[in-house]
Amino acid sequence: MKLSELASHLGGRVEGDGDVEIRAAAPIVDAGNGDVTFLANPKYKPLVAETSASAIIVRDGEEIGDTKANVLRVGEPYGAFVRTLALFDDRPQPSAGIHDRAVVAESAEIGPGAYVGPCAVVGDNVRIGRDCRIFPNATIYEGVTIGDRFTAHAGSVVREGLILGDDVTLQPGAVLGADGFGFLPAGDAAPVAIPQIGRVKVGDNVDVGANTTVDRAAVGESVLGEGVKLDNLVMVAHGCRIGDGTMIAAQTGIAGSTSIGKRVIIGGQVGINGHIDVHDEAKAAGGSRIVGDVDQGATVAGFPAVEIGTWRRYTVLLKRLPELFRRLRALEAGKQGKDK
Amino acid sequence: MKLSELASHLGGRVEGDGDVEIRAAAPIVDAGNGDVTFLANPKYKPLVAETSASAIIVRDGEEIGDTKANVLRVGEPYGAFVRTLALFDDRPQPSAGIHDRAVVAESAEIGPGAYVGPCAVVGDNVRIGRDCRIFPNATIYEGVTIGDRFTAHAGSVVREGLILGDDVTLQPGAVLGADGFGFLPAGDAAPVAIPQIGRVKVGDNVDVGANTTVDRAAVGESVLGEGVKLDNLVMVAHGCRIGDGTMIAAQTGIAGSTSIGKRVIIGGQVGINGHIDVHDEAKAAGGSRIVGDVDQGATVAGFPAVEIGTWRRYTVLLKRLPELFRRLRALEAGKQGKDK
Amino acid sequence: MKLSELASHLGGRVEGDGDVEIRAAAPIVDAGNGDVTFLANPKYKPLVAETSASAIIVRDGEEIGDTKANVLRVGEPYGAFVRTLALFDDRPQPSAGIHDRAVVAESAEIGPGAYVGPCAVVGDNVRIGRDCRIFPNATIYEGVTIGDRFTAHAGSVVREGLILGDDVTLQPGAVLGADGFGFLPAGDAAPVAIPQIGRVKVGDNVDVGANTTVDRAAVGESVLGEGVKLDNLVMVAHGCRIGDGTMIAAQTGIAGSTSIGKRVIIGGQVGINGHIDVHDEAKAAGGSRIVGDVDQGATVAGFPAVEIGTWRRYTVLLKRLPELFRRLRALEAGKQGKDK
Repeated sequence: MKLSELASHLGGRVEGDGDVEIRAAAPIVDAGNGDVTFLANPKYKPLVAETSASAIIVRDGEEIGDTKANVLRVGEPYGAFVRTLALFDDRPQPSAGIHDRAVVAESAEIGPGAYVGPCAVVGDNVRIGRDCRIFPNATIYEGVTIGDRFTAHAGSVVREGLILGDDVTLQPGAVLGADGFGFLPAGDAAPVAIPQIGRVKVGDNVDVGANTTVDRAAVGESVLGEGVKLDNLVMVAHGCRIGDGTMIAAQTGIAGSTSIGKRVIIGGQVGINGHIDVHDEAKAAGGSRIVGDVDQGATVAGFPAVEIGTWRRYTVLLKRLPELFRRLRALEAGKQGKDK
Repeated sequence: MKLSELASHLGGRVEGDGDVEIRAAAPIVDAGNGDVTFLANPKYKPLVAETSASAIIVRDGEEIGDTKANVLRVGEPYGAFVRTLALFDDRPQPSAGIHDRAVVAESAEIGPGAYVGPCAVVGDNVRIGRDCRIFPNATIYEGVTIGDRFTAHAGSVVREGLILGDDVTLQPGAVLGADGFGFLPAGDAAPVAIPQIGRVKVGDNVDVGANTTVDRAAVGESVLGEGVKLDNLVMVAHGCRIGDGTMIAAQTGIAGSTSIGKRVIIGGQVGINGHIDVHDEAKAAGGSRIVGDVDQGATVAGFPAVEIGTWRRYTVLLKRLPELFRRLRALEAGKQGKDK
Repeated sequence: MKLSELASHLGGRVEGDGDVEIRAAAPIVDAGNGDVTFLANPKYKPLVAETSASAIIVRDGEEIGDTKANVLRVGEPYGAFVRTLALFDDRPQPSAGIHDRAVVAESAEIGPGAYVGPCAVVGDNVRIGRDCRIFPNATIYEGVTIGDRFTAHAGSVVREGLILGDDVTLQPGAVLGADGFGFLPAGDAAPVAIPQIGRVKVGDNVDVGANTTVDRAAVGESVLGEGVKLDNLVMVAHGCRIGDGTMIAAQTGIAGSTSIGKRVIIGGQVGINGHIDVHDEAKAAGGSRIVGDVDQGATVAGFPAVEIGTWRRYTVLLKRLPELFRRLRALEAGKQGKDK
């Protein structure tokens, strides 16, 4: 693709040679001849002078100094680069068709345009909309209802009776609707399982990361709202409700019956207690351990999690604990001196 | 089901209309017309007056004030509700039968009443008792021995030579018997794998959560005792022994060769060092990092984990660190004043 | 096997009865009649007198006191024991052959000596070297290139277009090349996915643990260097580069675009921020939360991670916080007294 074609696709303007051929997209640290890259983070500005990329996407009016690269000016470079990535996405995609080694129950209904790979299994009374892609060894249990453009990567699992919206994507190994962890202690006998008869309801535009697990409710529903994005190895326990547009990074765990609001952003390896409320637009730094409700729009960090400024102050003061002891000893020595 | 029938099933007593039709069970915050709910946690008592549930299960003699719901009196409401859940569990269950797209080795022996789903694979010389359920895409490697009423959900894996008791349930993606993480450093060369020739032995009544992993021992056995319950994404490393009735919440990790006693309760995201002993009936709060032995019956918390009361005191005092520095400065200023 | 045969295999020397029959290897705490065990850790020295093992592998010249066991003297007991384990590894191994229920695309090329199990799926244009073992329900997507002696255990997944070296082993449920977690916030609308068009490149001699996930890069490559060893449930985000010989224990997570050097050793449940550098031969204790670059050879611990000696001092001083407050109060009281 010529740079001028890319420019017209992005609604941008070329400074330099619009005829240069662009063959791939790359981050600025890696970009070479034939690549288009971008500058959004000022940290990388010094690399503009040295890059051997064929073109660089830069914000209108931003001063970047000398560069050998051709420059493509746009209103918002990062968004433009994301659209560029889609243009250069040459990963192989499966063709529509149900493989003769796929196993689709006779009572299942799958809309037009479907790809169902070998050893993918679709159970009785499943209903799936149009243009789904179900990769090898994925399993959809009995009685599941799913919207259009569903993608289930290899090894992902949707347990019985779940309800999923449109444009849901499961990365490999993701598990929706496993039985929640509910057992009654029974003294010396083995704990008794509490039947987990509820389900999981998943909104439109939800992405679930590799090997992430979202448990069904004991009764009622666990809920992933519209546009929820879960990274890999996340755990959402039974009866949790995650609000629209909330994003949760890898290895975070949410205990049972907790509600997370809308557009909340949660870092990696965060732990959230059960039966609490994290309100809309809150944020939690990676590694936080949230043991109580979080206010709307608040940003928390630490173990146990507190307002992030407070946590930063702790971590600074923690470093000064040895000094604190020294100063205290000095004072005590002075006092003793005077007491003599 | 009429409320009077439910009452006789639970051995309870109706106050109100025993003829009301009960169609489902629900938590009190969600329950509506046709639902039975329950009151066990006093926190929810205020909801009794407003619930539109058709019936509410309440402890004998408990004063609950006015309610529009019919009341079902029992000795122990939570246990009664659990039995009610089982009555209303209408999730589809697979019928017995070995699907013609299942792959069961000729040398494998499976008892009567089995369900083996499509693309489930059972290897050579496997022996499984009666009434097992092996869901699609589960894999049982060669030489595994399993008791009665075994359930392996989709994508779960039991590696070669393992021994499992009766009533074992694996949620989707659970992995038993993967090779333990044992490598000898070899300077500039790649680390050398230590053959993990041991196995995992699993007692009766064990539940293993979705995508949880329990590694085989390097030599000898990793052990899950009778009635052990593991939540999702738990890691049990090679050579660990978990005692009878112990319950471990999600994303907890236990390093190699550690012993956990009986009826221990471990919260989520706990980390436990290798080669230590956590004794019977100990408890660990979520997020604890256990670096040494834990006494019988002790409750620990924090990083590193200490007795939970001590940890609570730390977290309170941590918040007062800024105050501590201020008070110290004041003392120092006073001293300076006097020194002048 | 006679002890004398084992001795000649290991290049060691018997003290005692070389004709004794050795049937298995076991750790010293478990070893009984017919077992060979070893002594490397001085902590276990007291067990030498009481062990009923038939033989014990001991360092040349090491004084061990009285024992009923026959003694096998070698230069390095632990390494000798590892080689002994390999001798007694009697776990069943699959025979070469492509099962008639395996699904291998016509355009795929697999070298000689391959085992491909039932319901394993190998996609279009995949190229795999000689002597691979692909277990049931593993999935290799389209366009993947893999070297010799590849092992993919049940349920493991290699996404499209990845490149793997020789001697790569994936434990059950491991996922390579899932889409990285990249979304552009879009206000009230659902966040927009950033196409993850890059791949993962895996060097020779890499082991990936059960249910571990390594995401493909947004652009360019995520890299696992030669001899990298990842334990179970590890998360490596998009665009990370892990250096040769680095070992990472279970449940550790590395956020996007971070570089880890060579021969780094990282404990379990460590969290590492994105876009940072952990340099060669660094070490991180379990549970550390690394928020900035780590120097070559440094050892860090804690939350946030600092040099491990500093962290140990904090944890000691943290325990003394109540004492600190008491001493401060005493000083303040003394001052008040004097101020009167």
